[in-house]
Amino acid sequence: MNWIYFVDLFGTSVFAISGVLTAMQKKFDIVGTLIIGFVTAIGGGTIRDLLIGRVPVGWLQNRSYLIAIVLGYAVAYIFKNKIIQWKRSMFLFDTIGIGLFTILGIEIALDYDLSIEYSIILGVISACFGGVTRDVLTNEIPLIFRKEIYATACFTGGLVYVLLTKVSSFTNLNIVVAIATVIVIRYLAIRNKWSLNFYKEE
Amino acid sequence: MNWIYFVDLFGTSVFAISGVLTAMQKKFDIVGTLIIGFVTAIGGGTIRDLLIGRVPVGWLQNRSYLIAIVLGYAVAYIFKNKIIQWKRSMFLFDTIGIGLFTILGIEIALDYDLSIEYSIILGVISACFGGVTRDVLTNEIPLIFRKEIYATACFTGGLVYVLLTKVSSFTNLNIVVAIATVIVIRYLAIRNKWSLNFYKEE
Amino acid sequence: MNWIYFVDLFGTSVFAISGVLTAMQKKFDIVGTLIIGFVTAIGGGTIRDLLIGRVPVGWLQNRSYLIAIVLGYAVAYIFKNKIIQWKRSMFLFDTIGIGLFTILGIEIALDYDLSIEYSIILGVISACFGGVTRDVLTNEIPLIFRKEIYATACFTGGLVYVLLTKVSSFTNLNIVVAIATVIVIRYLAIRNKWSLNFYKEE
Repeated sequence: MNWIYFVDLFGTSVFAISGVLTAMQKKFDIVGTLIIGFVTAIGGGTIRDLLIGRVPVGWLQNRSYLIAIVLGYAVAYIFKNKIIQWKRSMFLFDTIGIGLFTILGIEIALDYDLSIEYSIILGVISACFGGVTRDVLTNEIPLIFRKEIYATACFTGGLVYVLLTKVSSFTNLNIVVAIATVIVIRYLAIRNKWSLNFYKEE
Repeated sequence: MNWIYFVDLFGTSVFAISGVLTAMQKKFDIVGTLIIGFVTAIGGGTIRDLLIGRVPVGWLQNRSYLIAIVLGYAVAYIFKNKIIQWKRSMFLFDTIGIGLFTILGIEIALDYDLSIEYSIILGVISACFGGVTRDVLTNEIPLIFRKEIYATACFTGGLVYVLLTKVSSFTNLNIVVAIATVIVIRYLAIRNKWSLNFYKEE
Repeated sequence: MNWIYFVDLFGTSVFAISGVLTAMQKKFDIVGTLIIGFVTAIGGGTIRDLLIGRVPVGWLQNRSYLIAIVLGYAVAYIFKNKIIQWKRSMFLFDTIGIGLFTILGIEIALDYDLSIEYSIILGVISACFGGVTRDVLTNEIPLIFRKEIYATACFTGGLVYVLLTKVSSFTNLNIVVAIATVIVIRYLAIRNKWSLNFYKEE
């Protein structure tokens, strides 16, 4: 039970909260919000696991993910009016989560003997496709395609991580630096209203 | 060729009919309606099989499912004006179908050594995610997230089934009682306009 | 490196171009367009591979697909104004692509000991579900359900291919004839405004 495992479960809860909040805005019932929270939390890792043939998929082999999701679901309902005030913290936790998910995804893909490029791609999928699944199920155009620098931050963090592992054997430090990269990019992007869009905003 | 297998195939046909009717309302062509009927019928079981690594997925190993779907497709086109009058029967068949699909999904998951909680979840996925796939492909917000007590009925039926297997060894009876639970919950829910929604209906 | 492999990679590029162009029309950013191009190019084959348990899925095992997609992406951005003038060529390349993808899908399914009917279905899925995935992710009702004779052309081409392999051992010729079938059907359908829709067009 090291810190990585703890952050992984914590990130899972935060993802579930974000899914439940989105579903509540859409006026889904208590079952619908649970399903969306669930899918948001495990969607990215599930797609990664399916693509590489890691089955039964990860969360099915560990009850802790189920507990993390149900906790996130409860927190979302109990504190739904407070969470808006926690916006800044939620953003930070969410970003730590996607940073770690990217790195864990890369490591799992490398374990399955995939090439470095595809491993980084699978890391990005692990981090981003939970949100994509959430958006598809709630009938929205996935957010990462239009507004956020989300995928780019993950990709850069993943690249930094892979390069670091070539020159440094301090795994924990490498992970922290890579996650910090994701946080800095996403923070700067929002602060400076960066956009990867060639078109004028409407 | 026991009664369970027969009900499984019959449920597959009924699911296909419901998918074809939905697609016809959307004015899909004869190919589009066939694809939607197909996906509605096998979607839930396919997702379950992929998640646990039961591949090639179930229906690919048995031509009977293809025949059941094509029959349902033909029935939907031939009797499309009559089916509305059969509403009550269709509702009953559909509910028997989701009840059985839940139980079969649970049994398959337990065979793959999954925990009881995850097996019940996979049972619910087997029964409900064909409809979710249908709704995603027809660009609708999945019905089970908003209006129906569908998933809850499956979950309760699945729970009843698992509890019964602990105390009774009459498999057939256990299955019938679990399916009856699903039917009763869904019937009462519609009769009493139960809703799991915290919000006022618009 | 035979001609089939070359056409496969070329078709992958053309599919990626079509996905990128669709995403550009939706004003996705440079990351969003890349993801949609990617998904359009590999979506159909990925779904086929997942259903039969061919994992890690095909493209993850061969870097050439990644290169083909990135090339298609670059071409779409560099020549975006010209591609409209190339409409006729694009249509031809796209149709050759879906024809070949159908046949390759059938061969892979037969290798996995699936029945002939299911192999043809998986061939059609290989060719058509990249576009379905693109449409779902861009929040559109999949085109093949409403307007195009796309799936029917693939199905017929696949059937012709399977029948030819029973009577002729000239594999290359069989493939060319099957692809020509797909081209002819799609060309005639558009020329004659065939529609498989029973309803009047709005």
